Amino acid sequence: MDSAVTLAEARARGFETFALSFNYGQRHAVELEAAARVAAAASVREHRVVTLDLSALGGSALTDATGDIEVPKDRDFDPAGPSDTSPIPATYVPARNTVFLSVALGWAEILGARHIFLGVNAVDYSGYPDCRPEFLAAFESLAALATAAGTEEGARFYIEAPLLELSKADIVRRAAALGADLSLTHTCYDPVVEARAVLSCGHCDACVLRLAGFREAGVTDPIPYASDLL
Amino acid sequence: MDSAVTLAEARARGFETFALSFNYGQRHAVELEAAARVAAAASVREHRVVTLDLSALGGSALTDATGDIEVPKDRDFDPAGPSDTSPIPATYVPARNTVFLSVALGWAEILGARHIFLGVNAVDYSGYPDCRPEFLAAFESLAALATAAGTEEGARFYIEAPLLELSKADIVRRAAALGADLSLTHTCYDPVVEARAVLSCGHCDACVLRLAGFREAGVTDPIPYASDLL
Repeated sequence: MDSAVTLAEARARGFETFALSFNYGQRHAVELEAAARVAAAASVREHRVVTLDLSALGGSALTDATGDIEVPKDRDFDPAGPSDTSPIPATYVPARNTVFLSVALGWAEILGARHIFLGVNAVDYSGYPDCRPEFLAAFESLAALATAAGTEEGARFYIEAPLLELSKADIVRRAAALGADLSLTHTCYDPVVEARAVLSCGHCDACVLRLAGFREAGVTDPIPYASDLL
Repeated sequence: MDSAVTLAEARARGFETFALSFNYGQRHAVELEAAARVAAAASVREHRVVTLDLSALGGSALTDATGDIEVPKDRDFDPAGPSDTSPIPATYVPARNTVFLSVALGWAEILGARHIFLGVNAVDYSGYPDCRPEFLAAFESLAALATAAGTEEGARFYIEAPLLELSKADIVRRAAALGADLSLTHTCYDPVVEARAVLSCGHCDACVLRLAGFREAGVTDPIPYASDLL
């Protein structure tokens, strides 16, 4: 959902777009099918999926192959967002956004692109360190030094996070304003994949935040949830 | 060779060591077998290989799957090292060290490690932007912001590049001083793999620099070269 709205923002700003997804051992790899749908609907020039097996490192509920780390369910969230003292959630994948941005930087250099968009937002950044504005600024500085393109006179890269200051409800509203179809998106960390549908669990952090965002925006979430069947 | 001596430096400084290699679509993936030999000889606690398909992005002779980009051969090198105006070689993989360091950062966070060693050196950094000291300093700053561990009071990561100021000849001498067995190592970008041996080409940039380093140090390179057979 955040990526889809970010893509719509990039298009609204007039950019020709290239989409990059990661098959990183995430338990919700079904999100890659949603990414392909979103990319096609937005007529991106190209959509690439890079395989990167972060599950080889472990350390997160999202990539854990041992079954030892569970996805947290039905956690309470402060409506104002987590504070500086909130614990890092078990779904935190160490250095994930750094890795994703690094690969995106490599592709951007190859394409001759200078603007890298990503869908981090205000709710995420309170809990995940690599969603904070100061992280993004530091990566932008690094990008100038890390690449051949960055060493050219006057060249620089821009890390664009148009959702950074938005709440989930704001993002739902932006989707409507920009014409991004959220029925194509996937958010759940722990989906049930059935023969005819991917059912979101409705209870993981990602589902809880998504559902609260739709509720606050007064919009019905168009995707199916397992809990609809109960 | 650089990684093997870097590992020996880390051990000499008293660190318990964990080794990380990347299967990134490189044409010289045979280097992973050498990495396993080096890691075993150094009795590392653990050696992990992360798969990361950078060939999906293209853009480099090292990962090109189309056959369109050739590995440069028999290039001349200024003995003083490339200058600021030297062109970036075709073997440059966009943002490669940023990606490698990012994944290493994630694993370091999981392990509770704070020191990340990598074998970039003085000869490399003149040609590859992501081997320069200012790049490494920028990554160290980023690491503090990118991770959950980095947000802890007083926590920080150290990017250690003990070969940074060394020439290839210096590295050969350090290997001897530290007891690192360079016969276990692989350097060539374009090896010939035969039934009984991996033969280095002797002509790519990596071979040319390695051979010059051994020559200057007055040491015989123990690995086999295809040109030995001519």
